[in-house]
Amino acid sequence: GFGGVESLDYEVIENYAYRQEQARRGKLYVWYYVGVKWFFALLIGIGTGLAAVLINISVENFAGWKYSLTFRIIQSSYVAGFIVYTVINLALVFSSVFIITQFAPAAAGSGIPEIKGYLNGIDTRGILLFRTLIGKISGSIGSVGGGLALGKEGPLVHTGACIASLLGQGGSTKYHLSTRWLQVFKSDRDRRDLVTCGCAAGVAAAFRAPVGGVLFALEEVTSWWRSQLMWRVFFTSAVVAVVVRTAMGWCKSGKCGHFGSGGFIIWDVSDGQEDYSFEELLPMAIIGVIGGLLGALFNQLTLYITYWRRNYLHKKGNRVKIIEACLISVITSVISFGLPLFRKCSACPDSDVTSECPRPPGMYGNYVNFYCTKDNEYNDLATIFFNTQDDAIRNLFSAKTIHEYSAQSLLTFLAMFYSLAVVTFGTAVPAGQFVPGIMIGSTYGRLVGMFVVRLYKKLNIEEGTYALLGAASFLGGSMRMTVSLCVIMVEITNNLKLLPLIMLVLLISKAVGDAFNEGLYEEQARLRGIPLLESRPKNLMRKMTAKEACGNQKVSYFTRVVKVADVANILRTNSHNGFPVVDHTRTGETMVIGLILRSHLLVLLQSKADFQHSPLAVDMRSQSIPIRHSLSDFVKPVSSKGLSINDIHLSPDDLEMYIDLAPFVNPSPYVVPEDMSLTKVYNLFRQLGLRHIFVVPRASRVIGMITRKDLLFED
Amino acid sequence: GFGGVESLDYEVIENYAYRQEQARRGKLYVWYYVGVKWFFALLIGIGTGLAAVLINISVENFAGWKYSLTFRIIQSSYVAGFIVYTVINLALVFSSVFIITQFAPAAAGSGIPEIKGYLNGIDTRGILLFRTLIGKISGSIGSVGGGLALGKEGPLVHTGACIASLLGQGGSTKYHLSTRWLQVFKSDRDRRDLVTCGCAAGVAAAFRAPVGGVLFALEEVTSWWRSQLMWRVFFTSAVVAVVVRTAMGWCKSGKCGHFGSGGFIIWDVSDGQEDYSFEELLPMAIIGVIGGLLGALFNQLTLYITYWRRNYLHKKGNRVKIIEACLISVITSVISFGLPLFRKCSACPDSDVTSECPRPPGMYGNYVNFYCTKDNEYNDLATIFFNTQDDAIRNLFSAKTIHEYSAQSLLTFLAMFYSLAVVTFGTAVPAGQFVPGIMIGSTYGRLVGMFVVRLYKKLNIEEGTYALLGAASFLGGSMRMTVSLCVIMVEITNNLKLLPLIMLVLLISKAVGDAFNEGLYEEQARLRGIPLLESRPKNLMRKMTAKEACGNQKVSYFTRVVKVADVANILRTNSHNGFPVVDHTRTGETMVIGLILRSHLLVLLQSKADFQHSPLAVDMRSQSIPIRHSLSDFVKPVSSKGLSINDIHLSPDDLEMYIDLAPFVNPSPYVVPEDMSLTKVYNLFRQLGLRHIFVVPRASRVIGMITRKDLLFED
Ligand SMILES: Nc1ncnc2c1ncn2[C@@H]1O[C@H](COP(=O)(O)OP(=O)(O)OP(=O)(O)O)[C@@H](O)[C@H]1O
Ligand SMILES: Nc1ncnc2c1ncn2[C@@H]1O[C@H](COP(=O)(O)OP(=O)(O)OP(=O)(O)O)[C@@H](O)[C@H]1O
Ligand SMILES: [Mg+2]
Ligand SMILES: [Mg+2]
Repeated sequence: GFGGVESLDYEVIENYAYRQEQARRGKLYVWYYVGVKWFFALLIGIGTGLAAVLINISVENFAGWKYSLTFRIIQSSYVAGFIVYTVINLALVFSSVFIITQFAPAAAGSGIPEIKGYLNGIDTRGILLFRTLIGKISGSIGSVGGGLALGKEGPLVHTGACIASLLGQGGSTKYHLSTRWLQVFKSDRDRRDLVTCGCAAGVAAAFRAPVGGVLFALEEVTSWWRSQLMWRVFFTSAVVAVVVRTAMGWCKSGKCGHFGSGGFIIWDVSDGQEDYSFEELLPMAIIGVIGGLLGALFNQLTLYITYWRRNYLHKKGNRVKIIEACLISVITSVISFGLPLFRKCSACPDSDVTSECPRPPGMYGNYVNFYCTKDNEYNDLATIFFNTQDDAIRNLFSAKTIHEYSAQSLLTFLAMFYSLAVVTFGTAVPAGQFVPGIMIGSTYGRLVGMFVVRLYKKLNIEEGTYALLGAASFLGGSMRMTVSLCVIMVEITNNLKLLPLIMLVLLISKAVGDAFNEGLYEEQARLRGIPLLESRPKNLMRKMTAKEACGNQKVSYFTRVVKVADVANILRTNSHNGFPVVDHTRTGETMVIGLILRSHLLVLLQSKADFQHSPLAVDMRSQSIPIRHSLSDFVKPVSSKGLSINDIHLSPDDLEMYIDLAPFVNPSPYVVPEDMSLTKVYNLFRQLGLRHIFVVPRASRVIGMITRKDLLFED
Repeated sequence: GFGGVESLDYEVIENYAYRQEQARRGKLYVWYYVGVKWFFALLIGIGTGLAAVLINISVENFAGWKYSLTFRIIQSSYVAGFIVYTVINLALVFSSVFIITQFAPAAAGSGIPEIKGYLNGIDTRGILLFRTLIGKISGSIGSVGGGLALGKEGPLVHTGACIASLLGQGGSTKYHLSTRWLQVFKSDRDRRDLVTCGCAAGVAAAFRAPVGGVLFALEEVTSWWRSQLMWRVFFTSAVVAVVVRTAMGWCKSGKCGHFGSGGFIIWDVSDGQEDYSFEELLPMAIIGVIGGLLGALFNQLTLYITYWRRNYLHKKGNRVKIIEACLISVITSVISFGLPLFRKCSACPDSDVTSECPRPPGMYGNYVNFYCTKDNEYNDLATIFFNTQDDAIRNLFSAKTIHEYSAQSLLTFLAMFYSLAVVTFGTAVPAGQFVPGIMIGSTYGRLVGMFVVRLYKKLNIEEGTYALLGAASFLGGSMRMTVSLCVIMVEITNNLKLLPLIMLVLLISKAVGDAFNEGLYEEQARLRGIPLLESRPKNLMRKMTAKEACGNQKVSYFTRVVKVADVANILRTNSHNGFPVVDHTRTGETMVIGLILRSHLLVLLQSKADFQHSPLAVDMRSQSIPIRHSLSDFVKPVSSKGLSINDIHLSPDDLEMYIDLAPFVNPSPYVVPEDMSLTKVYNLFRQLGLRHIFVVPRASRVIGMITRKDLLFED
């Protein structure tokens, strides 16, 4: 099933090139290395922050210009207004889908399942390329600006990860933008650390939630975690926060067009409800249950649709993808423009003093006067539908606007938007599910809130608070995150007092959702053939041993000194990426001396420098091994296919020669005895981020014991 | 060096008793087990929340009563007032130190180093006993209420951990408060999970910071982490937040005496500065540097003093400890009462409208009229010194009170309080360092703030914000936490806008502090002989192999069927806790069949049920092995000494018998080949929380390979 993916190697391959590199490098190099790591963290923060600012400014300007133009035109003609509105949306969506299909196919979707996979140890081809980065940024400007039912937050996470990975390889080699000087990160391990930083930076930039970013990286994406890394991730997030804040301060003076007043989701609900009574816990729990149900349903529906798309629709080529996206854009335009037309105008309430009613044209706020002719009327469906999503959410969260929406409008919107979100998911444009999720959740949350207000007749209940809880519940029910989501919700709404309530709702919605299916990202990853290893081993593993897991496989291995023809042959006849290397001791017994990677073998075959005529081993202890390779020869290029055995030409003479593999093996791969229970093997594999484990016979004797005391050294 | 401590076993010992237990247990048991885990999380939350409420109510009442009495008396006589004040403090401190020395010696200090050690894998004797819990709660009421320069937050973390551990063993066996029904947690692993929950609950309760609690447990104390656990820890923290909030709501009606108005640190600075300009980053960085320096100095001084106390002073017995604590109490009283006397009264500012000046007697707030005779005067030193620490901090953080303190008073207070905090640290009372740290930090922070106000002459600078940053910087410089501290600061001050600034200050102060020494808890743990394994392996390990780490130790091992006399002999002549067990194959070669723990051997020797006359092995494959032990026989009692070889009486007949160890060994301990680099061994040991690793010869062949694909199962 998982043909297209490769595993990453979190292990340090301690071959002789590595050891020589280590020996040559002094204390100074360690400092340099640490310095570059921090410098990169800084750059990732700045880059991701700027990307977020760019996307936000562009989207807000496109959308702002679109809405103000439409508003101006509908004063004279609805039909003309509708056409202009639809055409602008269509153009934006078309540009997005065109870029994605023609130029950066890996940039479609949210990218979070792929990033999750990467940090779990699986390399999906093309997700971290330079063109993916460009496609992601420009594509999400088009798709979000074009008013589709999707968000820009997921793509920002992917953007952050791309920036980090490109920095890690010192630029894009394909586009000749790389420098040797920055190429200090040669192992998958270092690159993964950078991508973790980038991922946190993306969340921090998307939600202006630095702590949420750190927790997201921690909870959702990394299967391993070290506290040094936490520290650096934290720094990156802080940098993002400062960059975004600076840019927004700069924009306040009006230099950024429509951006100044909206943009950058941050829905301050600090004027909301501060207190809650025990009777309210029941409706809140109900919100949690609804969130769990609707979230699980969302996952299931999108799973079916994505499955169908992958296997039928999108197989038909790029043209179908483009037509599909354009069709969905038109439908979205029709619904968001048409539905409010069917809704009667309401009279402005007298009580509300915080917002003007109806709001002046070209401004942001509640009470959108859409087609209403009278001066003190507004259209409640247009307030949420004919608006950017950020503004709609702000309106849904708003406190002190008790009677703004009718239940009928909210229900209509919920049904329509939910369907749109399901259908839009999986089209070939960059798409995030956070903001649509918040939209859906806050709609039913506000509905429940309206009900509660009527039922309990208390004054201190705010529907906006319920909308916020609804948003949390839907995200919890769909994405199944807990701590990070909670912190993100608190950070975007700037209201710490609601924390325990959000926690409660999340606990319920996640538990309900888990009863039905897995989280959105896990489901999508599975569908895309990304084999994520969960943190908990499966129950049936407890009864299996390591040997049983291997089945009756015949291990393909190499002897220490091996004929080039044999190497080529074995590499051609199977697709394994790692091979044991076996040597003979002087007493004639065999002995496993290490593991060799396919990629390293291919490097050796290509360079031919190590071929020898004699079938005798070189003496490893003598100082005379000629240094024919530096460590960088063995570095895998990021996200590109690398060498293949078919690319290498070997002459008949070459094939008759020998090669001594001993200097190139990883001398100490992790081993497990054959009857270790698979649970233990699983923990070992996952916690250490391994790629290969050798199953070996039981040891004949114990040379030594290692306990905590043997590992305590004073530096 | 580390004689008194034992390691914990995070490994599941898969001996035959375990496997039989597993086989007997059905699907229902798994549900029951999960259910109990969540139920315990709930109980831990409730218990810790209630303990926190109890401590806070008691402390606030003692302190409130003390201050109001003293204020009443000093209206007529200063001397009488001073004497009453001193005597009350002395009585409270005496009660605390008496309880600790006579009844619960393990409850002295903050307990965080020990808890850190526990979660790192080291069991310090007595820290999780029932008597420690009682001593901790009652002792910290005395020591905090008695006005010493220490806080109640560290002890609350310890309290939470104790509650969790006691629940885990189903109550206290010694005091006959246990039930069999709850004893489902038989492994160190489950108990450690519970203690992690308890630890987070403690932080959540101490600071009313649920997210901070989760992060504290994550960053500071656990060396391993699983996302299922995160989820449960999160739940516990949420429960604590609800319990504390409910109790405080109940107290608002005045049923809790003095508690209603103060207590439960939560310093709302949401009316503080919202914005900052670039010029301010420099003074803020300076605060970071000062914090790093003063924090590192604090760690160093307390290290010396603690060293001296452990090796000289406290060796002289409990009486010396009691005298010491009482002496410090008197000194503290003299300073806090006397120093304000030397300070001239200041006139109340006209501008301040938020607080009354001077504050009415018996109330909380700024502008304490101490001995000032005129009606519109106050004593600025008394405002911070002659006050509970919570109130003093509230006053230091307060915004819009620009001219309240003179630089001279702040400096005096800083010097005095810093010295008191250093001296008080390590006395035999429960003591936390959070609140004193915040006191110290906010004092110099406010000093810098006053300077900045004068320098930049801008209006939107608030000294209270600088005080907050100062507090963060000192804690960062001393404790070296980052993310969790940051979140705790945000949660206790309820101001999210300051997050990036707090981050910046923390980054600087931690970096500066790290240049001098380790964090407070690490230093203290080292001093107490708790061998923490850091998350990063030492550099020199890279060049060492596993075999070198073992030195030339001669491994003590057992053969599969062994004479009882030999077992007793080996157990008597060394103190190792784990031994390899070796068997002979039919071909006459030796083979390692597993690891046996000393504690299990002692159980076998004591029960004598497995002794046999013949030196032949039982056939493990036949169904006829009699079940002589259940899993619970092998469960280690929590925090008690357990069996010793000297407690077991063996008759000469017993000594001549044999015992077959095969059913009791852990059949698959982790093994490493002899020439694996020590870095890898370290990572294996730490990431998996191991206790013993076997160093074995290189394998002769590879039976199978395990890759990611072999570990993917559909349930
Ligand atoms: N050298 C080998 N000899 C025999 N079987 C192997 C060898 N390497 C892997 N296998 C087995 O072949 C199956 C497919 O593994 P695969 O070849 O994809 O591993 P890999 O490519 O080395 O690792 P990955 O795909 O995770 O990068 C697995 O069940 C694995 O156990
Ligand atoms: N069975 C053994 N035979 C020989 N040496 C051992 C054995 N077990 C441990 N050692 C070594 O003895 C030293 C002291 O270890 P110690 O006996 O304290 O381990 P332990 O008590 O089994 O584990 P811990 O103290 O961590 O609970 C270490 O260097 C260790 O490598
Ligand atoms: Mg493969
Ligand atoms: Mg020991």
